[in-house]
Amino acid sequence: MSSNGNVYAALTASKLFTGATWPSPSPWPILSRFSEVQSSRLKFALPLPNVLKNHFKLADGPPSSAVGSPDEIKELFPNLFGQSSVMLLPGRDSSEDNKSLRIGVVLSGGQAPGGHTVISGIFDYLQERAKGSKMYGFKGGPAGIMKFKYVELTSDVINLYRNQGGFDMICSGRDKIETPEQLKQAADTVQKLDLDGLVVIGGDDSNTNACILAEYFRGQNLKTRVIGCPKTIDGDLKCKEVPISFGFDTATKIFSELIGNVMVDARSTGKYYHFVRLMGRAASHITLECALQTHPNVTIIGEEVAAQNFTLKNVTGYITDIICKRAELGYNYGVVLIPEGLIDFIPEVQQLISELNEILAHDAVDKEGVWKKKLRSQSCQLFELLPQDIQDQLLLERDPHGNVQVSKIETEKMLIQMIETELEKRRKDGLYNNNFIGRPHFFGYEGRCGLPSKFDSDYCYALGYGAAALLQFGKTGLISSVGNLGAPVEKWTVGGTALTSLMDVERRQGQFKPVIKKAMVELEGAPFKKLASMRDEWALNNRYVSPGPIQFVGPTSNIRNQTLTLELGAQA
Amino acid sequence: MSSNGNVYAALTASKLFTGATWPSPSPWPILSRFSEVQSSRLKFALPLPNVLKNHFKLADGPPSSAVGSPDEIKELFPNLFGQSSVMLLPGRDSSEDNKSLRIGVVLSGGQAPGGHTVISGIFDYLQERAKGSKMYGFKGGPAGIMKFKYVELTSDVINLYRNQGGFDMICSGRDKIETPEQLKQAADTVQKLDLDGLVVIGGDDSNTNACILAEYFRGQNLKTRVIGCPKTIDGDLKCKEVPISFGFDTATKIFSELIGNVMVDARSTGKYYHFVRLMGRAASHITLECALQTHPNVTIIGEEVAAQNFTLKNVTGYITDIICKRAELGYNYGVVLIPEGLIDFIPEVQQLISELNEILAHDAVDKEGVWKKKLRSQSCQLFELLPQDIQDQLLLERDPHGNVQVSKIETEKMLIQMIETELEKRRKDGLYNNNFIGRPHFFGYEGRCGLPSKFDSDYCYALGYGAAALLQFGKTGLISSVGNLGAPVEKWTVGGTALTSLMDVERRQGQFKPVIKKAMVELEGAPFKKLASMRDEWALNNRYVSPGPIQFVGPTSNIRNQTLTLELGAQA
Repeated sequence: MSSNGNVYAALTASKLFTGATWPSPSPWPILSRFSEVQSSRLKFALPLPNVLKNHFKLADGPPSSAVGSPDEIKELFPNLFGQSSVMLLPGRDSSEDNKSLRIGVVLSGGQAPGGHTVISGIFDYLQERAKGSKMYGFKGGPAGIMKFKYVELTSDVINLYRNQGGFDMICSGRDKIETPEQLKQAADTVQKLDLDGLVVIGGDDSNTNACILAEYFRGQNLKTRVIGCPKTIDGDLKCKEVPISFGFDTATKIFSELIGNVMVDARSTGKYYHFVRLMGRAASHITLECALQTHPNVTIIGEEVAAQNFTLKNVTGYITDIICKRAELGYNYGVVLIPEGLIDFIPEVQQLISELNEILAHDAVDKEGVWKKKLRSQSCQLFELLPQDIQDQLLLERDPHGNVQVSKIETEKMLIQMIETELEKRRKDGLYNNNFIGRPHFFGYEGRCGLPSKFDSDYCYALGYGAAALLQFGKTGLISSVGNLGAPVEKWTVGGTALTSLMDVERRQGQFKPVIKKAMVELEGAPFKKLASMRDEWALNNRYVSPGPIQFVGPTSNIRNQTLTLELGAQA
Repeated sequence: MSSNGNVYAALTASKLFTGATWPSPSPWPILSRFSEVQSSRLKFALPLPNVLKNHFKLADGPPSSAVGSPDEIKELFPNLFGQSSVMLLPGRDSSEDNKSLRIGVVLSGGQAPGGHTVISGIFDYLQERAKGSKMYGFKGGPAGIMKFKYVELTSDVINLYRNQGGFDMICSGRDKIETPEQLKQAADTVQKLDLDGLVVIGGDDSNTNACILAEYFRGQNLKTRVIGCPKTIDGDLKCKEVPISFGFDTATKIFSELIGNVMVDARSTGKYYHFVRLMGRAASHITLECALQTHPNVTIIGEEVAAQNFTLKNVTGYITDIICKRAELGYNYGVVLIPEGLIDFIPEVQQLISELNEILAHDAVDKEGVWKKKLRSQSCQLFELLPQDIQDQLLLERDPHGNVQVSKIETEKMLIQMIETELEKRRKDGLYNNNFIGRPHFFGYEGRCGLPSKFDSDYCYALGYGAAALLQFGKTGLISSVGNLGAPVEKWTVGGTALTSLMDVERRQGQFKPVIKKAMVELEGAPFKKLASMRDEWALNNRYVSPGPIQFVGPTSNIRNQTLTLELGAQA
């Protein structure tokens, strides 16, 4: 702030405006400063699985089907359906002829730590095993493909992003390539760049889109192959062949670091209940993993809430019961974890929202509340249960289509208010006689772009290196698959899984749409069972664990997330 | 959640309630689980400055005075005023006779990483140099002294907390020992425990209180000496002899890790403005330090706002100007840092609050707004400028004394709303034509209890070890002082500074109160000048730096905070 207060004039007059600037979203040449930790990661050489260190050949598995509706999937993907998944094995193959390739890469959807490492894995493969290759990055996600916006990825660029967090090398976007016109645009782009292959780094929707592109390109007899890579901090893209999506490990470690700190604070202060909402709208894997790492007093898992048909009152009552019980034990503090998508999992809330949308579309909301008579009795009761400001928010803040914006509700604050009300009631009934102070937190953006953990770094490097290998073998419509993750990196397996084999169809507006179903928290799976077996003890006795900050060197750098560890353990 | 929904009954019936439980705030025996990083820190041996490794003697400095009002300070502290600060030097002293000691320790005020390490420093001194000593921890802060609540600190306890974050070994509290009755209670306690010394670990107020205790005990001819240790993440307790308070280094690194992550996310996504409010109500050191570590687009420093007599409109305008300028450059994203205490620094807001308190104490607030006529014109304009929900909050949510609760205002959200309004106005004037999405964050509790950084660990260990040495030399009324921090640990100096020399008086309700003045951000100091010289460039060009998570081993573990580095550099 300049001292005369006229900052704007000062800025405008400054020399800053004469230099060349880079239009968003391509700020990559601007990254000119690194912290010491960033610098140390830049230079860190990543290990490869043994199979990628020498000559390898491809082994085909049996023909594949689809997880559901194979007939419809076959109709949607006539060129790809049924193809085998493949595995890289030591040996020599005539396809591996070291010819140079032209490869494009795109980041799709929300950020996840490790995206740059996938890209450097692809790049290093091309440098080492397909000399003379060219690599292009599409800017701003799939829109970059459609709009022919790209940048050549040379070592000058790649070396600025090795082991760094974020997607800022080429940025990302949420567009999809779906309509015939959009598919045509994509085909034009890959032809103009004469691409042998395209790697799509994304979540469930983006990998579905990758498969659609692979099918389309093959149907058009284009030489461009398409390989997907499993990315999402949410952890909801996984299956037997793809045991985990990258980014989940790092993001949950960052969130758990913060939760652990807040826990120690709660115990030290003795007077706060920290309510931590965690990113992850569709599935509660992040919340579950953070609970397994930190042992909070309360963990709400959306999938359980839905399966048990819990009401909002049930959830509030459950937390309030534990608060009262802890007060009896002398603990007026605690930590509660809530998934971002909690409200979406509560059936009665969905019902209320849909009734509200209907009513608000046609009627005015009178101050006297006559409009409420249009709500079904259960919905009306639920509405009355909500704190005043949440009621206001539901009625007043609507999206451009006039719909209630449920995603804007700060669930952690809502629960704090509802619990305050419930505790006040119990106080009057002589059932509670203590102080409750809730402190809300939302952790999400803090974890999507952290420096990748050792696990995510190793995993992403193998995913990228493997994806490039699959392209050199001429494969398409596969998702890069790195397995045997319970073993040291050297023994990891590398291959590709037929994307069609992961698919089912959903009927949307009368049409069949192919989808890779999101992997939800399995209530019979090992991670949830572990939580279920421990949570009563964690509720009342304080078993807090503080995971601390991610370490990049030394023995503690090798820790892996609990979800993967428990799932692999259950399989073994 | 048990499947029948009746969790409360299930919990009550469980065996969990039959075991022994520990009343809050003494949960220390419950800490039974450590993460791998916690475990690795437990076993980590800390280095000592060379002077503490062998025999040492005390060297007295010249007689001291006070930073202000020496006559009043002399009157308030007749027994302590004028005493010399001391330095430990290599050599042998007859006072260092290895006699056993009985030492009490208390944690006072908010949590800061390193408190446990100070305690283990004291403990190790006693073990190594005063064999047969006993150590006691007062529970829940100064209240523990007054209420005779303590626990003996043996190696079994200490070894559970080595290098760990938090204050949960003995917990903390915000009480003060001030009235004659309270001082008498404290005297009774130290006599009952037959204490040779008491170490008070706290901030400016707590160290003032330590000095009052030291004076009182000496006046009563008690043998108990009192030594203070400088603690606060806020960084506002410092002077020449005490270059930094412990906890600041760790907390700012944790906040900067998160800010760095959010910055990379902003650049990758290209569509969010993250508004980060940072703990630190009285001074803006934390915000300044985080800015120096991460290079945000906007940094608001409360001390500058106050010095320049900025209005809320100035601040909003400054940020909005930068947003508009960035939009012209193609950047519709950014990161803005705001100190928690911003509102307290804006003179016109203070004026409005005091007028509101006056009006609300006497009049009803009518819906038509006639009451507003009682506001002075400038205050009325400011009130109208505030977003609706902030207006409501000011009018409705008052503390038990009926006062407006300014501390409850989420400044980052308020600024986002005011900037939205301002941008809408500029849009209508054709001066802005882009999308602005603000995302609020508040980082505070996440940083107070993290695992201490290497710097804080080394510093705290020396502070504690040195404090015990001062007690063995029979010193009282000093604050443990570790200096020469620009050099490696081995060359650090160790001594004690007369607490009275740091004091001034404040007139409160007609009485003189001794205070250690909070160290505010100096607008002529090297850290602020660095920010001032860089911020225009950071505003428009993106110079984001992502410090990453604190590393405990390897070369990147030795990074020190910028504020200390720049201040030491300016002194050199």
